[in-house]
Amino acid sequence: MLALHGYWRSGAAWRVRLVLALKGLDWTSVPHDLRHGEQALPTYRALNPQALVPALDTGAAVLTQSLAICEWLEEAWPQPPILPADPLLRAQARAIALVIACDTHPLANLRVQQALRRDLGADEAQVNGWLAHWIGDGLDAVAALVARHGGAFAVGDTPTIADCCLVPQLYGARRFGLDAARWPALVAIEARLLALPGLAATHPDQQADAA
Amino acid sequence: MLALHGYWRSGAAWRVRLVLALKGLDWTSVPHDLRHGEQALPTYRALNPQALVPALDTGAAVLTQSLAICEWLEEAWPQPPILPADPLLRAQARAIALVIACDTHPLANLRVQQALRRDLGADEAQVNGWLAHWIGDGLDAVAALVARHGGAFAVGDTPTIADCCLVPQLYGARRFGLDAARWPALVAIEARLLALPGLAATHPDQQADAA
Repeated sequence: MLALHGYWRSGAAWRVRLVLALKGLDWTSVPHDLRHGEQALPTYRALNPQALVPALDTGAAVLTQSLAICEWLEEAWPQPPILPADPLLRAQARAIALVIACDTHPLANLRVQQALRRDLGADEAQVNGWLAHWIGDGLDAVAALVARHGGAFAVGDTPTIADCCLVPQLYGARRFGLDAARWPALVAIEARLLALPGLAATHPDQQADAA
Repeated sequence: MLALHGYWRSGAAWRVRLVLALKGLDWTSVPHDLRHGEQALPTYRALNPQALVPALDTGAAVLTQSLAICEWLEEAWPQPPILPADPLLRAQARAIALVIACDTHPLANLRVQQALRRDLGADEAQVNGWLAHWIGDGLDAVAALVARHGGAFAVGDTPTIADCCLVPQLYGARRFGLDAARWPALVAIEARLLALPGLAATHPDQQADAA
């Protein structure tokens, strides 16, 4: 069975949980407590040299990087698809996912917050300002792209990889004090996605390791 | 004809130039001088609301985010492929590309350097320390993954999207003062890629807008 190495509050791990749920796949959870640095232990580094979650043990290999895992799931279990059939729309869905996965989430995650405090002496107000700036900037860009390509979901009227990145980023935005009401169309998409059968169980608060 | 909106020194734009060259495609260059903020002008924002390069005008649509553009090129012109045929190796190639595109490059680009100085009061030594930390960390992870999956190139013996991300990141590492000799296997791959027919012309120094 598929085994997902993750952490309840990891936005990148949540992306994979959403795709697994959309495809109706069974999986087991292998939690690593990031607050205690468990992702840096030698046993986990042997699986993922980058020492980040998530990683997916397929039984045949350990895959890393959430979007690479999602693309593999799409190729291995094509139905229901998480990418549109039209090539140009596939590119738009991937672009929205990448705005979040490349230009938003990595600037706001735990290791960057720690480096801001440790290496640059940033105080809490500066860290919060940093998070608000980059998360706000990223979600503003997503909102602009969704205005062009979206329907009931971020691209068209069925869920894609874009929605699976958007929902965890909105959770992260609220967690760090941003008012998600700034992006009403994105909040509406979030509600639609989490209302689909089985999707609510992917929420961080529903994970066995949630504290 | 394909029109690539870029900037000579943008590592993300270079990724796309490498894929275009590997596939032997013709394209025209539309440069935007990032040092003068041209990517933030309304005319460019109308094409890419994120105000970042690259963007690819296909004639039918404007695509953004370098890896989404590369995946579209792969779907539109499958030969020669930039992803392995084996699904698990495809995931490994994408993972290496994403280590760079998500967890390395976005922490070291111009807009982040500007924010470190402007918002956090970082001095030059702190900015250089930040760049060395994140670029070094990312390339260390890439080297570990290449040790598992690599051959003549990052994954196996033919060029993939992983190599097209790696080469610009090595250029960025040297530009910011890191000694690339720390990653001899990656430097050897870089030399092999740029020695392929037509690939040297993709180098930043060879672009018409290079200054």
